[in-house]
Amino acid sequence: VVITLLTDFGTADGFVAEMKGVLASEAPGATLVDLTHEIPAHDIDAARMALARCWLRFPPGTVHIVVVDPGVGGARKALAVQSRDRFLVGPDNGVLSPALLARDARVVALPVPPDASPTFHGRDVFAPAGARLARGESLATLGHPHVGAVVLRAPEATRHADGTIAGEIVSVDRFGNLITNIAGRPGGTVLIGDAQIPVRRTYGDVADDALVAVPSSNGFLEVALRGVSAAARLGLKRGDSVACTPQG
Amino acid sequence: VVITLLTDFGTADGFVAEMKGVLASEAPGATLVDLTHEIPAHDIDAARMALARCWLRFPPGTVHIVVVDPGVGGARKALAVQSRDRFLVGPDNGVLSPALLARDARVVALPVPPDASPTFHGRDVFAPAGARLARGESLATLGHPHVGAVVLRAPEATRHADGTIAGEIVSVDRFGNLITNIAGRPGGTVLIGDAQIPVRRTYGDVADDALVAVPSSNGFLEVALRGVSAAARLGLKRGDSVACTPQG
Amino acid sequence: VVITLLTDFGTADGFVAEMKGVLASEAPGATLVDLTHEIPAHDIDAARMALARCWLRFPPGTVHIVVVDPGVGGARKALAVQSRDRFLVGPDNGVLSPALLARDARVVALPVPPDASPTFHGRDVFAPAGARLARGESLATLGHPHVGAVVLRAPEATRHADGTIAGEIVSVDRFGNLITNIAGRPGGTVLIGDAQIPVRRTYGDVADDALVAVPSSNGFLEVALRGVSAAARLGLKRGDSVACTPQG
Repeated sequence: VVITLLTDFGTADGFVAEMKGVLASEAPGATLVDLTHEIPAHDIDAARMALARCWLRFPPGTVHIVVVDPGVGGARKALAVQSRDRFLVGPDNGVLSPALLARDARVVALPVPPDASPTFHGRDVFAPAGARLARGESLATLGHPHVGAVVLRAPEATRHADGTIAGEIVSVDRFGNLITNIAGRPGGTVLIGDAQIPVRRTYGDVADDALVAVPSSNGFLEVALRGVSAAARLGLKRGDSVACTPQG
Repeated sequence: VVITLLTDFGTADGFVAEMKGVLASEAPGATLVDLTHEIPAHDIDAARMALARCWLRFPPGTVHIVVVDPGVGGARKALAVQSRDRFLVGPDNGVLSPALLARDARVVALPVPPDASPTFHGRDVFAPAGARLARGESLATLGHPHVGAVVLRAPEATRHADGTIAGEIVSVDRFGNLITNIAGRPGGTVLIGDAQIPVRRTYGDVADDALVAVPSSNGFLEVALRGVSAAARLGLKRGDSVACTPQG
Repeated sequence: VVITLLTDFGTADGFVAEMKGVLASEAPGATLVDLTHEIPAHDIDAARMALARCWLRFPPGTVHIVVVDPGVGGARKALAVQSRDRFLVGPDNGVLSPALLARDARVVALPVPPDASPTFHGRDVFAPAGARLARGESLATLGHPHVGAVVLRAPEATRHADGTIAGEIVSVDRFGNLITNIAGRPGGTVLIGDAQIPVRRTYGDVADDALVAVPSSNGFLEVALRGVSAAARLGLKRGDSVACTPQG
C-alpha cells in the first residue's frame, strides 16, 4: 500500500521526520511517498490544488495524508475520507476538497486522543489514522460519519455575451507561469493587463522573448514566457484578473 | 529495514543522490526514507534537534545516517552507534547526541578506507557502514569501541527563587514559531523582550493578531503568532533570552 | 527495481506528485527514489552534472527519469537510453549526456501519444516509458533507434607549455564551494582572480578563515572557505576562469 504525504512543514524542523517515524512503525509494510512539504505555510488553496492534480493518479487503496492545518488543536474536525477507492486524512478546512467533491465520498470525523499534542495532529492524529487505513482497517472503524465537511472550489470563470471569458490567476508555478481558471484551446487570445497573448499549443510556439498562452497540463490556460518568469515580467500574482477571447 | 537520511546537503548538487546510489546498491532490500536535506549548512545543533524529534519513532532495527559534517576528512572520528535498538552513523561532532545520551548506547569508530574522498564521507564511509548495518552485520564488526564521543545538549533552563524560569530560544521553525527550552503548561506567562504572552493550549486560543505561547509537540513552550511569523514580529532569533512565570 | 526522479520542478506545484502517481500505478512493484527536484529552472547543465555524479552508483536495472525540459512539446525528441546496464528516459537536450557518452549506449526515440500534454511530457511520456522499462520491457519495444542525440560536455581544461592548467568554475555547490574542471592533487596552487590558493587534502587543512583548494569527491579541484561561502567571498560564479599550477 502507498501512503503519500502532502504538508506545508518543510523538512528542516523534523516534523515530517516524526510523521514518517510513526508511519514506519505503525504501517511497516507501506511505501511512503513524499508529494511535497513545500506548500507555502498555511496555504490551504495551494495544497488543495496540488492534491487535485495527483490524488487520482495513484492506485486504488492509496492513503493520502494532507496536513496544512492552521487551525490545529482548535474546533475544526479531523477527517478521514474514502473517495473513488482512495483514502485521505486531513483537517476539515478544505484541503481535502478534491476528494470530497466526488459523488461516492464517505467522511468520518476522527476522535482526537487526549494525549495528542494540540499543535501537531499530523503526528498524533493523521499519521496514526493513515497507518490504520494502510493496514486495511475500514473507514467506519476510524470514526463517526461526518456531514458538512468544508469544501473549497477554485473560483469559476464567467462567460460574457460577447464570448469573452473572464477569470483569474489561480496559481503561479515554480517557472513563473500564470495558471488561470479558464479552460481553453489554441487559437484564442488571452487578455491580461495591457497584453494580448496568443493561445498556442506549447511554450516554443512563439519567439524566445514573447509571451504565450497554452493549455496547461490540467486543461486550463496558462501564460508563460520561455525561460523567464511571466509573473515577474507582468507583475502579476494569484487572484489577478484575466480574460480570454475564443478567437484571435 | 528502514534507512533514513538526515543531511545539510540540499539535493540540487547530487551529493544525496550519490549516497542513495551507494545504499541502493549495497543494501538492496532496504527502504530509504528522507528525513531532511535542508538542515542549514554546517548547523550541527539543528541536525541534533531534528534527530532528537524522530529517531525513536522509527521501528527497532532502523538505521539513521546523519551527515552534517563541517570537519569531514579531518581529525574527528566517524562513528556508528547502537542505542535503544536503533543504529546510527555519522561524524563525532555531536549530531548523534540524542542516541549517545541513552544508557545502553554502544559506540564504535569506523575506519576510513584509504580511497575515501576526504571531502565526502557521507558517500564513502557513512553510507557503506549504514548499508552493512541494514544487511544485519553487528556493530562490533564495523569498528573498534570508541569512548568519549562528543555529546551536545540543549542549554538548560534555570529556575529562580521566585518561581520564574529563565531559558532561551533554541530554534525557530518554518512558521516563525520560537521554540524555547522551557517546559511548561497552559496557565503561565512567557516574558520575552517587552512582551508578556499567555500560555494557552493551542494557537487558536487567542485573537488572530495576538501572540500566544503553547506547549510545543516536544513538550517545550513555543511562542507563535497565528498565520504570521512570531520571529519576524518580535525580531528574535535562536539564542535570545526568554523567561516564564508558572502563573499568569 | 529502482526508479529515480531528477527534475527542475520543485515539489510545491504538484507536478512531481503527478509523475509519482503515474509510476505508482504503472510500475507498482518499483521503488521510487527522489534524486532532486531542485535543479534550477531549465538548467540543463546542472541536471547533467547531478546525473553524472550518481547514475552509475545505482544497481544495474535502475531506471533514471530525468526531466529538465525547456523545449517540451516542441521539436526535440523524447529519448530512452540503455547504457551500462541502466536505463534512462528524458528529453534530447543533453541532460542524458553522461549515459550517452558510454560506449555501449543504445538510444530510441519515444513516440509522443496524441493525448499527451504538450507542456508536461514528464507525466505523459517519460513516466509511462520509465514504468514500462521498470516492468521489464526491452528498450527496443519503446521506440525506434535514434542517432545523433544531443551530447553536452563540461568545458575541458587546457594545459599550457609552462605546466599551468587553465579551466573554469563549472558549478557552485550549496556550501558556496567552487567546483572546477581541473583535475588535481594536493601540492599545487589554484589561481583565481588575485588569489593564490594552496591545494590541500581536505577543508580543515588550513586556518579557519583561509581559502583552500581540495580535490573534490568527483576528482576535480574545488575552492572552499571553511564554514563560509567561497563563492560569496570571492564574488565568483559558474563560467569564471580559474588556473592551477601543479607545484606550489
